[in-house]
Amino acid sequence: MLSYGIREIGSYLPSTRIDCVELAKRLGVSDYTLGTKIGFDALAIKSESEDTSDMACKAVLDLMQRTGLLPDEISCMVVVTQNPDGFGIPQVSALVHGKLGWAESLATFDISLGCSGYVYALSIVSGFLAAQGGKHGILVTADPYSKIVDTDDRGTALLFGDAATATLISSDATWRIGASDFGTSGAMAGSLELDEGRKIRMRGKDIAKFCMREVPRSIERALEKNDLAMVDVDLVLLHQGSRFIVDGVGEMLGASEKTPFCAAAMGNTSSSSIPLALQDVLRAPIQPQALVLSSFGVGLSWASTVIRRNGQISVAGPQ
Amino acid sequence: MLSYGIREIGSYLPSTRIDCVELAKRLGVSDYTLGTKIGFDALAIKSESEDTSDMACKAVLDLMQRTGLLPDEISCMVVVTQNPDGFGIPQVSALVHGKLGWAESLATFDISLGCSGYVYALSIVSGFLAAQGGKHGILVTADPYSKIVDTDDRGTALLFGDAATATLISSDATWRIGASDFGTSGAMAGSLELDEGRKIRMRGKDIAKFCMREVPRSIERALEKNDLAMVDVDLVLLHQGSRFIVDGVGEMLGASEKTPFCAAAMGNTSSSSIPLALQDVLRAPIQPQALVLSSFGVGLSWASTVIRRNGQISVAGPQ
Repeated sequence: MLSYGIREIGSYLPSTRIDCVELAKRLGVSDYTLGTKIGFDALAIKSESEDTSDMACKAVLDLMQRTGLLPDEISCMVVVTQNPDGFGIPQVSALVHGKLGWAESLATFDISLGCSGYVYALSIVSGFLAAQGGKHGILVTADPYSKIVDTDDRGTALLFGDAATATLISSDATWRIGASDFGTSGAMAGSLELDEGRKIRMRGKDIAKFCMREVPRSIERALEKNDLAMVDVDLVLLHQGSRFIVDGVGEMLGASEKTPFCAAAMGNTSSSSIPLALQDVLRAPIQPQALVLSSFGVGLSWASTVIRRNGQISVAGPQ
Repeated sequence: MLSYGIREIGSYLPSTRIDCVELAKRLGVSDYTLGTKIGFDALAIKSESEDTSDMACKAVLDLMQRTGLLPDEISCMVVVTQNPDGFGIPQVSALVHGKLGWAESLATFDISLGCSGYVYALSIVSGFLAAQGGKHGILVTADPYSKIVDTDDRGTALLFGDAATATLISSDATWRIGASDFGTSGAMAGSLELDEGRKIRMRGKDIAKFCMREVPRSIERALEKNDLAMVDVDLVLLHQGSRFIVDGVGEMLGASEKTPFCAAAMGNTSSSSIPLALQDVLRAPIQPQALVLSSFGVGLSWASTVIRRNGQISVAGPQ
């Protein structure tokens, strides 16, 4: 288990929504498909004038307000995105640094991962802090898919929402990050890619099959690496790709009661979906003791881990 | 000092060259400026059909041949690029994974940083391996600027070359990575950015001033963090931005004899410039004991560190 953990999460969710029922009608998608397969009632959407770095700044400022930390106490800020401002030069983390006006001693970089990014970045940021001796780092997710969605494409127009989150990773945090399972299926890279017009094209059925096959296995490996069994964890927060995927993976795991679908009001927000769900869990009056986080998507790529409340001693139940 | 270090470096340098003397004539750039300021005789350039992931694969295969390791011994592969295949979805590391056909258990992600990327990534990859218990990781740099250079722009057309490198980061490596200095000047993010046509635009004078001011300070801080003085290190490998920048920073440091300009035959290869230079140093018959590596660029962003031969005990000289 790493000595670093999750202390607090800030976020920014644009207030504008696309009504999925209306859009589904226009696209000829049935109510049944919308309700049981897609599962989103509304999609959060940023304004035209708002860029990725603006969304990231709002999430960081929300985090700073919640923690009461000063910018000088932060050693690094890492932005997970595949939808940067402009064409990605300069990187979003530098633009956020400039907009916030923080000190030049801040280490910053971007990670290019899609929906699998949050769980990967928990280890990347913790590892970077440990390697260079920092106390606090900020992990930002900001991947607005509205930039790349073709609103006439029935396969993707009803899926993606815009959001940003900022997670404080600290050496004295409540939620310790455990050992993780990572993987890549580059042979399936073409299942989710941008076309020449910079619009997302997705082979939904291939991805769904992939998720049903790989995600439960990845979660089992992550549990095993942490000497835990499914019975020991309170919740499994899955990337909120769609209702079909969340429900399907829950069934494959035999743990549907532990895999909530919680993105109906905002859409699949890529690497922001898990921290948005986790933020609500961490603020609930009754706190769980151990959670699985599992993220998967573009690449295809996946990462699963366990987070546990500091000090808790868990013992693996019967396998 | 980290427990991980640099064990070996592989690379790929395209064989095609742009002749800088001819190009300078066409652009009306004087021989004096080309020789003393720019400093590149030729620029390495990839073929049209060759993409970033292809260059990365060639560098990885060169590394694997040099080390004799099997793919299953590698825990992670990280690609530093801001010029990915297509529009960056999927990430280059997944495409490389697919082309190499390696096992699905490989952790992969991309880091979006420009010329400062290599020194940053030494800590990112080492930290990730340490956090998750891996023995070997591959750090790839592949950032072909020929994709984004406007060949009629006198300010940039004579600067950038294409290359890729692959560095093996291992727990039992010869060259240990020391404490590092990182920084960001997001207020200067506009000094090096892509325009709406996806071409690079650079305020060369602003960047040169920034380098002269920040890079020597960053190197001094990195030396201090490692309890070393300039007299203790054999070489200072600077990002090979241009002859003017390498020579100027060397003079500011009062250590011109330790800051070689070694990219005249290939150009500024972004995050590949330091590993290309380091590769030659590590293969030389007489091995140095301690080196400074300092990289800086897009963001603006910088990172400096010290690498030392394993087992060597260094003592700081008189300050």
